[in-house]
Amino acid sequence: MSTLHARSPQESITILTELVLPAQANLLGNLLGGQLMHFMDIAGALTCRRHSGYEVATVAVDKLEFKHPIKVGEVITITSKLIWVGNTSMKVKIDVSAEDTKVHVCKLTNTAYMTFVALDSNCKPVKVPPLAPQTDEEKALFEREQKRYLEFKKSRK
Amino acid sequence: MSTLHARSPQESITILTELVLPAQANLLGNLLGGQLMHFMDIAGALTCRRHSGYEVATVAVDKLEFKHPIKVGEVITITSKLIWVGNTSMKVKIDVSAEDTKVHVCKLTNTAYMTFVALDSNCKPVKVPPLAPQTDEEKALFEREQKRYLEFKKSRK
Amino acid sequence: MSTLHARSPQESITILTELVLPAQANLLGNLLGGQLMHFMDIAGALTCRRHSGYEVATVAVDKLEFKHPIKVGEVITITSKLIWVGNTSMKVKIDVSAEDTKVHVCKLTNTAYMTFVALDSNCKPVKVPPLAPQTDEEKALFEREQKRYLEFKKSRK
Amino acid sequence: MSTLHARSPQESITILTELVLPAQANLLGNLLGGQLMHFMDIAGALTCRRHSGYEVATVAVDKLEFKHPIKVGEVITITSKLIWVGNTSMKVKIDVSAEDTKVHVCKLTNTAYMTFVALDSNCKPVKVPPLAPQTDEEKALFEREQKRYLEFKKSRK
Amino acid sequence: MSTLHARSPQESITILTELVLPAQANLLGNLLGGQLMHFMDIAGALTCRRHSGYEVATVAVDKLEFKHPIKVGEVITITSKLIWVGNTSMKVKIDVSAEDTKVHVCKLTNTAYMTFVALDSNCKPVKVPPLAPQTDEEKALFEREQKRYLEFKKSRK
Amino acid sequence: MSTLHARSPQESITILTELVLPAQANLLGNLLGGQLMHFMDIAGALTCRRHSGYEVATVAVDKLEFKHPIKVGEVITITSKLIWVGNTSMKVKIDVSAEDTKVHVCKLTNTAYMTFVALDSNCKPVKVPPLAPQTDEEKALFEREQKRYLEFKKSRK
Repeated sequence: MSTLHARSPQESITILTELVLPAQANLLGNLLGGQLMHFMDIAGALTCRRHSGYEVATVAVDKLEFKHPIKVGEVITITSKLIWVGNTSMKVKIDVSAEDTKVHVCKLTNTAYMTFVALDSNCKPVKVPPLAPQTDEEKALFEREQKRYLEFKKSRK
Repeated sequence: MSTLHARSPQESITILTELVLPAQANLLGNLLGGQLMHFMDIAGALTCRRHSGYEVATVAVDKLEFKHPIKVGEVITITSKLIWVGNTSMKVKIDVSAEDTKVHVCKLTNTAYMTFVALDSNCKPVKVPPLAPQTDEEKALFEREQKRYLEFKKSRK
Repeated sequence: MSTLHARSPQESITILTELVLPAQANLLGNLLGGQLMHFMDIAGALTCRRHSGYEVATVAVDKLEFKHPIKVGEVITITSKLIWVGNTSMKVKIDVSAEDTKVHVCKLTNTAYMTFVALDSNCKPVKVPPLAPQTDEEKALFEREQKRYLEFKKSRK
Repeated sequence: MSTLHARSPQESITILTELVLPAQANLLGNLLGGQLMHFMDIAGALTCRRHSGYEVATVAVDKLEFKHPIKVGEVITITSKLIWVGNTSMKVKIDVSAEDTKVHVCKLTNTAYMTFVALDSNCKPVKVPPLAPQTDEEKALFEREQKRYLEFKKSRK
Repeated sequence: MSTLHARSPQESITILTELVLPAQANLLGNLLGGQLMHFMDIAGALTCRRHSGYEVATVAVDKLEFKHPIKVGEVITITSKLIWVGNTSMKVKIDVSAEDTKVHVCKLTNTAYMTFVALDSNCKPVKVPPLAPQTDEEKALFEREQKRYLEFKKSRK
Repeated sequence: MSTLHARSPQESITILTELVLPAQANLLGNLLGGQLMHFMDIAGALTCRRHSGYEVATVAVDKLEFKHPIKVGEVITITSKLIWVGNTSMKVKIDVSAEDTKVHVCKLTNTAYMTFVALDSNCKPVKVPPLAPQTDEEKALFEREQKRYLEFKKSRK
């Protein structure tokens, strides 16, 4: 049986940039929550496709916070980075920041954690490369998630 | 100062029904995660608009789980019901079930908790009517959330 | 030859709820007529899929009336109910009402009659279960349509 | 009081051409009914804007028939022509034909009658120019509609 | 080997008409550039499908000029006409004019040249009918493009 | 009169990343040309907004080449970088590359030149900061465009 080569979080980091258009506005003139979640879902999926080399499906969204509304005309940057990888599932942290390009002011508007599973060509979960955290922050995040995962597994027995 | 009349969770329950069309498919032929989250966001917002009588904004999404993929051609039902209400914020539980209308088979595909805040005409948070849980289940859910909220408030001091 | 079990109009009634978003506005800030007709078409199709257990195609739209414009921000309820069923075709009555959820005012904005045909897996018309009207109103509507249908058939000879 | 100059049906005839794209497909791979109705609504509205010089709103759709399904990849032509004009309302006949541009085969797929009302800048109904039918067919259609209109008015008294 | 019958530019001319809706607006309330380019791309593709009888793919866009902004609510006419045809590729000139239907004022807003290639059922380039320019203007345009094409071919050797 | 501080091309470089979804497919299962042009238009506009600090409008598209089709499921990267700036107008070079994230193969699919003009709050052209090319390649591109611009100006006299 072949072993999969570990990859760092940096290798699959994904950054999306979107200009918020009038057609994406809610009743208050801000970006629709569902449209923002779509961008976050795509960013997370791209990270997990890059890490695994497989098609992926969304499994969970957690602690998605809306700190500030995003106005039509602002430019948003969605950054997705792996924090933990198990056998077949991968967890990313997603940060969204909005920038008024004309005044060069930028603020963190959203954060979330999303989990994806890799699927083979029969749509069955498939083993993915391990994650090799490099920086102290990456290692601490990985530890925290690994601990949570083991507690969750124990609780299900 | 006037007091706001309490309302039951049943008074603002919202049920959306959507037929999943080809334009909403992801690369696997299933409903796009972001499109589903849009439906959940609208369902939750409608519940909170009905309860409060104000425009509302999304504040948080929690424990959003994708239990089963939803296929193009299936009909989904998104049910949103209040479980807790604070001064200006409201928390709903959202359940999504998918039905193949032709074979009358239905399954629970997604659950999530979403929090919204009511906004007055200046987009400032505004006091909303209290929630009056009626059934034992409604009361238990409310207690659990109220306890969490008080712990969260204490932790911030 | 097997006979199909008759079903009541109530068994296939379908109710859609939609929040009208800015992207669905016409030049007057009201819901685009074509978008509303899309919602009515989906509602009618779901009713006929539920009654027949088959995929369906739209055959006709009649007496679609726009009584009041629907504003962006209003919530609309589209109710579709069978009034007549022939060998392979089914006729529904569709009512649309718009509600300003914040002030709890609701009005009937549109009515229409739509006819669908059931299709088998080769896209050929296929026999559907008969309709069993229950209430006096359901029975009267069915009679009226049955009479029209027989007159129409006679006129074609 | 000024009198409005009569205009012929030919002066406001409107022809739309649309290529049916995959994003507009229903579950059978044909053009979604609601999308087609959107094209018909726009065609009718343009005719009535051209005739009246005012913004218009849809009032009614009648005898909309789906004679043949329209496949993804076909090119459709939507032709809208005035058949009757009253004080503030205008009635158009709409024909849709689908063409497989590659084999140069064309067929009539849909017909409908749609009524619009002209609106002034306060969204109130406003008097429009009379219709001056020119050909024998235009005159016959106008007579038939005028008779229907008078009977309808009498029946409401 | 069979020879293909030459066709005139007039035989494949294509005219699209579109009402600019609020959902197609940019941040200035004008038609989004990308939406306009989509209409031009479809118009050009239809012309080349009509001339060749094959599916076509976009190869190049040149000298696309935006002379005037197009406002939401205006009606645009996109006219696409062949000016040159080679072995497997076809070049169209596209003109866009915008009309405020209410005041009957019309202006040329955009021009462009687009090149398409015909594809057979294996998505390989395929020989198309020659172009037979008829008018003096059509002949002059064809000569100019033929000269350019021969210079381009020579420069590649 | 104040003078505007020159900025390097690097300061306003913009990179968009998009996953091509089924709803964006043409009849051959590739990304619609108009959708791709929309992404290029947004990328160019963001670069020019960042450089100028103003809202911008598209003025021209040149030498847009489609070298390879882009398949549904591929990830595209749109890179936009300033090559020349005049008084009120700015020219960007745009490169599009498509990547099958699963096999880590990437290819250049499109290139184009786009020109934008900066607009003040009255939608009038407004003076923008000069461009300060840094690398040899940036300087050569700027020279070439400056020469073209001067020839164009002379030819108009």
